[in-house]
Amino acid sequence: MGSMPITRAQATSASRGTIEPMEDELVAWLRQHLPAHRDQSVPIGDDAAVLHWGTGPGCVVMVDVVMDGVDFELAEVAASRVGHKALAVNLSDLAAMAARPRAAVVALVLPRHGGAELARELYAGMIPLAERYDVALAGGDINSWDGRLVVSVTAIGQETARGPLRRSGARPGDWIVVTGSLGGSRLAKHLDFEPRVNEALLLHERYALHAGIDISDGLTLDLARLCEASGCGSVIDLASVPIDPAAGQWARQLADGSTALDHALSDGEDFELVLTLPADEAARLVADQPLEIPVTRIGEIVAERGLWQRDATGIVTPLVPRGFQHELDKP
Amino acid sequence: MGSMPITRAQATSASRGTIEPMEDELVAWLRQHLPAHRDQSVPIGDDAAVLHWGTGPGCVVMVDVVMDGVDFELAEVAASRVGHKALAVNLSDLAAMAARPRAAVVALVLPRHGGAELARELYAGMIPLAERYDVALAGGDINSWDGRLVVSVTAIGQETARGPLRRSGARPGDWIVVTGSLGGSRLAKHLDFEPRVNEALLLHERYALHAGIDISDGLTLDLARLCEASGCGSVIDLASVPIDPAAGQWARQLADGSTALDHALSDGEDFELVLTLPADEAARLVADQPLEIPVTRIGEIVAERGLWQRDATGIVTPLVPRGFQHELDKP
Repeated sequence: MGSMPITRAQATSASRGTIEPMEDELVAWLRQHLPAHRDQSVPIGDDAAVLHWGTGPGCVVMVDVVMDGVDFELAEVAASRVGHKALAVNLSDLAAMAARPRAAVVALVLPRHGGAELARELYAGMIPLAERYDVALAGGDINSWDGRLVVSVTAIGQETARGPLRRSGARPGDWIVVTGSLGGSRLAKHLDFEPRVNEALLLHERYALHAGIDISDGLTLDLARLCEASGCGSVIDLASVPIDPAAGQWARQLADGSTALDHALSDGEDFELVLTLPADEAARLVADQPLEIPVTRIGEIVAERGLWQRDATGIVTPLVPRGFQHELDKP
Repeated sequence: MGSMPITRAQATSASRGTIEPMEDELVAWLRQHLPAHRDQSVPIGDDAAVLHWGTGPGCVVMVDVVMDGVDFELAEVAASRVGHKALAVNLSDLAAMAARPRAAVVALVLPRHGGAELARELYAGMIPLAERYDVALAGGDINSWDGRLVVSVTAIGQETARGPLRRSGARPGDWIVVTGSLGGSRLAKHLDFEPRVNEALLLHERYALHAGIDISDGLTLDLARLCEASGCGSVIDLASVPIDPAAGQWARQLADGSTALDHALSDGEDFELVLTLPADEAARLVADQPLEIPVTRIGEIVAERGLWQRDATGIVTPLVPRGFQHELDKP
């Protein structure tokens, strides 16, 4: 992509944006301090850990928590949708690794008042999803307290014969593709989305994918993480980003000057897949359109680190990743 | 054990005590409503689920959550002790199944203020324990919110060649034995206990254990669960219960008329093992004393359901199980 308009140091600084990146910093700390273990082939920081016991396929394990007041407002939504979401975010992480879901265990921290009925409704949302993806809902832990609802789901999958799809496999020259359309998920999709499990398995089998991540915190933020893990950068062609109608609707609703494109680039919880693969493979994939949802080329991986945007006239400028990070005070 | 002084209906009613048993009722509801899955050999309600993929040993999975204000008071204890406890309760559940720990994933819900430093301290408590039992700390999920700290740990183990030790295997005539000594854990042990992982593996290998559970909610309550799962009852010889010095200290501190024995029978979070095995095997075990901690016979399994106590004069009366249950309002 030619010469870069800013230095790497500037790009790193820009990529931090205005968000306290304590979540990513904590992951970096953990990567340094957690002891390595011979069973573990994918270290902390990817979407899930991969563990090897014996000779069978690796076991892909991940946990995701959703909390009332952060990931949903229990007063405003049916608990069954919360249950669906709690399991679906985990299946989405398994999809990001192109792993086959096998089981999930659920820990509930229930508010004391009405907790038992709430638990039943949460499970009523989880059970159909578990059945659809043949996931054993293997029990869990039930607790109550005076605080708000917390649902922690641990999903366990198995890597396929192609191994897990990792964040770190992107190479300069790869095309970047996304499934579905982006933005405005807060209107409904963040609760009702279908994890891209089958899509990931199909694409991983038929195309030589290099890297993948699911959009949980926003396209630009998650793509920046993929690039950082891969030691490279990316250029997004702004005109090619598939914008969901909900993104425009959300922008109009906010009426804060944000555009539909802004939301497609930065809204969290789209739970679509961002994948990179060699240009020729990607061209074949985009021509094939093998899924029931579109797969769209949105840019390419470059050697120079950082996140860049290319406008309709071809001018490349830095793109500040934006999205959702859990904000923690510095100690 | 001869004729029972009360009927089974009375015993069941008595066994409910004064505690709203919503936690157990919810587990019963889940047992009815969760779809069975061919991969799962130990259904919901035991200490952990056992899953089978391929031909290797079964995968034993369980999750346990600890919460600030319920399981500890963060303002009063070092966070590293909380981290130790969060992982140790899970390893204790694996010990109850006599499974070998292999990995754990951790989900943190951190208070926003000081969350990053807190996370590091929590891990500082987990890492030595993980290393001691050769457990891969396989990453997890980091969140923050305005609420109190929640730590959810999912542990994954493997069954040994003898298979998992279950709650449901107790048979009339079995002796009931416990490891260590009981009561008063609230003074310190509930935070600093060592999970009985190695003890369980050794005993499961050398003796024909029938059933097992760890004491998380109190000897009588957990024993009642084991009996219910096994479809039988138990008689505890009150004089033989190994009382920890902390139980007396705790009784004196409370000065509420409770005795050290009361606390040994009902205090939660001892995290010792309750095991049942045929009388001859149990006699051999008690004579051998193969552990660094004592193993004590405290009673026997009987056909008649319910929980019974035998006093020093040999008189048998109903024993109301007491202990800790998460109290939930009825819907």
